Amino acid sequence: MQKIDINCDMGESTGLWPYHIGNDIALLPYITSANIACGLHAGDACTMHELVEAALLAGVAVGAHPGFEDRSNFGRTNMQLPPAKIYDLVIYQIGALDAFLKINGTKLHHVKPHGALYNMAAKDAVMAMAVCQAVKDYSADLILYGLSGSELINAAATIELRSCPEVFADRSYQEDGSLTPRNLPNAMIEDETQCVQQVIQMAKHGKVQAVSNKTINVQAGTICVHSDGTHALPFAKLIHQALQEKGIEIKPV
Amino acid sequence: MQKIDINCDMGESTGLWPYHIGNDIALLPYITSANIACGLHAGDACTMHELVEAALLAGVAVGAHPGFEDRSNFGRTNMQLPPAKIYDLVIYQIGALDAFLKINGTKLHHVKPHGALYNMAAKDAVMAMAVCQAVKDYSADLILYGLSGSELINAAATIELRSCPEVFADRSYQEDGSLTPRNLPNAMIEDETQCVQQVIQMAKHGKVQAVSNKTINVQAGTICVHSDGTHALPFAKLIHQALQEKGIEIKPV
Amino acid sequence: MQKIDINCDMGESTGLWPYHIGNDIALLPYITSANIACGLHAGDACTMHELVEAALLAGVAVGAHPGFEDRSNFGRTNMQLPPAKIYDLVIYQIGALDAFLKINGTKLHHVKPHGALYNMAAKDAVMAMAVCQAVKDYSADLILYGLSGSELINAAATIELRSCPEVFADRSYQEDGSLTPRNLPNAMIEDETQCVQQVIQMAKHGKVQAVSNKTINVQAGTICVHSDGTHALPFAKLIHQALQEKGIEIKPV
Amino acid sequence: MQKIDINCDMGESTGLWPYHIGNDIALLPYITSANIACGLHAGDACTMHELVEAALLAGVAVGAHPGFEDRSNFGRTNMQLPPAKIYDLVIYQIGALDAFLKINGTKLHHVKPHGALYNMAAKDAVMAMAVCQAVKDYSADLILYGLSGSELINAAATIELRSCPEVFADRSYQEDGSLTPRNLPNAMIEDETQCVQQVIQMAKHGKVQAVSNKTINVQAGTICVHSDGTHALPFAKLIHQALQEKGIEIKPV
Repeated sequence: MQKIDINCDMGESTGLWPYHIGNDIALLPYITSANIACGLHAGDACTMHELVEAALLAGVAVGAHPGFEDRSNFGRTNMQLPPAKIYDLVIYQIGALDAFLKINGTKLHHVKPHGALYNMAAKDAVMAMAVCQAVKDYSADLILYGLSGSELINAAATIELRSCPEVFADRSYQEDGSLTPRNLPNAMIEDETQCVQQVIQMAKHGKVQAVSNKTINVQAGTICVHSDGTHALPFAKLIHQALQEKGIEIKPV
Repeated sequence: MQKIDINCDMGESTGLWPYHIGNDIALLPYITSANIACGLHAGDACTMHELVEAALLAGVAVGAHPGFEDRSNFGRTNMQLPPAKIYDLVIYQIGALDAFLKINGTKLHHVKPHGALYNMAAKDAVMAMAVCQAVKDYSADLILYGLSGSELINAAATIELRSCPEVFADRSYQEDGSLTPRNLPNAMIEDETQCVQQVIQMAKHGKVQAVSNKTINVQAGTICVHSDGTHALPFAKLIHQALQEKGIEIKPV
Repeated sequence: MQKIDINCDMGESTGLWPYHIGNDIALLPYITSANIACGLHAGDACTMHELVEAALLAGVAVGAHPGFEDRSNFGRTNMQLPPAKIYDLVIYQIGALDAFLKINGTKLHHVKPHGALYNMAAKDAVMAMAVCQAVKDYSADLILYGLSGSELINAAATIELRSCPEVFADRSYQEDGSLTPRNLPNAMIEDETQCVQQVIQMAKHGKVQAVSNKTINVQAGTICVHSDGTHALPFAKLIHQALQEKGIEIKPV
Repeated sequence: MQKIDINCDMGESTGLWPYHIGNDIALLPYITSANIACGLHAGDACTMHELVEAALLAGVAVGAHPGFEDRSNFGRTNMQLPPAKIYDLVIYQIGALDAFLKINGTKLHHVKPHGALYNMAAKDAVMAMAVCQAVKDYSADLILYGLSGSELINAAATIELRSCPEVFADRSYQEDGSLTPRNLPNAMIEDETQCVQQVIQMAKHGKVQAVSNKTINVQAGTICVHSDGTHALPFAKLIHQALQEKGIEIKPV
């Protein structure tokens, strides 16, 4: 039987709390992995604490979602940092989040880089290795979530760090398997039916149609749903239901 | 034989690196405990990494130095936060720093709150308990460094968290054992001879003369020296030498 | 004919843009004053630029909404800062926002402090004077918006700075005219009918019922509506309509 | 008679105040332009206020020194931002600093971008234009300080914004007139005699020897000295004296 994980980036709202955290918590029944922001691109200590405990209670696997220290651009701006700095940023954020698991008698399950860190490391082998080495040095039990077919997955393989290839329901793909950058008009897939079709095609057949119409291969270990926007919750339910109807088991990595 | 620890707050410079970190590193031979800033009131991931490794190499005990998230006031502004937020801020910062010890195969030794967090918790039993509970929940092996005779020491005793009472060489004392606030003119002791006398009196006899001239009792488990300012290094050497000459053993807690 | 201004705090979302700014912009037809966050407690340069121009286009008076430099608590934490620092924080934020008016060939209309700065200055005459002096030193043409009957209004009067007393639709009042602190259970008025009644009573009769049931006097120069939450837009429409139906003219100060 | 301006970046220390601001103030007699950090890459409202007034008192021209919002890397990290964001960041920071001149009854004199913003805009015509357009839109009276021969100077010329070409005493040059990046070993000129020779050659003859040994042309409208480091003050004095001895008049732009 085929299986897939559903992950969601969480805890990315601060200042407006508790408005948004409510959306995050409402999503927990429909996901199997929560990637929690660690206070540099978004999030803060209280949000982290609350979400860690809500996710544990819901039986959702808790991961760190480290990003660039760039709150004003939500960690979505490319920053040219030396690998040693990338390494340190990842260690710092993993440690900060893991502390909230430690006080609950458990440990971090995975790490998924955020935004520009995720996208830059997907294409840059040196940056990818800095991220993966940080994850492995912190704990060899951790699993790296990274874009399917990317340098992040390659780097993890090189150092024998466990990884899980990620696919996206509502993002369009380039021929090289990268995501269409958010500043391009067709980056997001707005039509829900099309999103569901993309998910099923990726999960069942390991294929996705790039914006050029060429069909490319992807490995769908985990699928990303988002927690922001008014449609986040119904959309996550829709994906969850569609996968179940197609006989794909939804379970953590 | 009497003994005392010498601690120093470190890693509190960013942006001007590597200028200041040099001063921190030069001080390591003269101290036995380093309290490293954790990125909220000061410091950053790279500084933390570098100082943790320098301190370990020098055989200095490494502690976390958590503060308020208030970089623009260097964590020296009183902030009225609920105990749950204080707890979360301490957990976050301990975890972030401990990560740099974990990748070096070791663990955090102690926690010393910074600035306004230290001073508010010294007088406020509820805040003191929030700090101490965070430290103990993170690890029952940790030692809390707090102002001698303060609510921090009391709270640690209440929950059976190990603590170490701290005294200051270059700060003047009020009759109630609190430090004279920094905004008052006589907060700092500028005269080096007077500082050394205060240190020896505290370390050997457990006494200090308050600004009112009244002599009060203190417990001197660890003495704080500072790393900033042009005189920091010669001053630390002076204190170190004076303690040795008086036959007081300088060793970690 | 009686008249009142309707003001709204805006530009307080970052990182999640453009989701929230849409709500701000949708509210512009129902308000006459926009108070735009200035980048310290919330907001950023891009949000400020976009909202300034949207407000000008809508014919809404643009004001600065300066707060404490405390993004992680949304500027809602009391900070014990010296008056000179308060003064400087206000100058900095006014100047930053006014720059976006200057490039549009116009000037800032008013200043309304945010959150803890607003509430502390409402009760503390020294802090109130620091705020008012900063506003007047920057430009004697500016109008200060502050809680009706508060020290902010008093300080403005003392130095002959124009001011406008503010009332709240959805916040409950204490007998002394202060707002019930947000951490108390009855701080917010959830029932819309009750909010509308409170607004009308304040606007028409200059009265409001405190939580103790005692009726107190207020001066209602401007009424605050909020832009966050799913009900913000229908609520602003409701207030707008209710005031018009009661024959109260809605116009800027 | 030949003439040159001497400028210095200032107000880049926070948290450790007042230690560093002392160095900035001590340098004022030896410079003619002060570029004051505006609170995003470094600096804060209090430092800005104090330095503006100290510079005005010393008769030094006051300029804004805007940088990327990247405090943890001191604004020295390349950030890939859209031109509209660059424009807004510059407007914000100019306005914030100008506010402290406005309360002193005067106006900003010039703008010099900081760090990565300066270096990226020196080579990128689109970014250079975003910076220059912001400066000109804010006030057509402002003067842009930018690297001699760079895209910043070109962009200013294109839109008829006054500019002043800058040269460096202690930085080495590439053949294309750009500064050797700081992460390369020969970026800084450590030898004081060599610095002085470079300054005189640039100021008198408009020439500098690149690291390749090729002699290239530069326009020396203003020379940059630094305020950090223990040698900053004697070094500034040395440059000041050497220029005077060679009969080059030191005066603001």
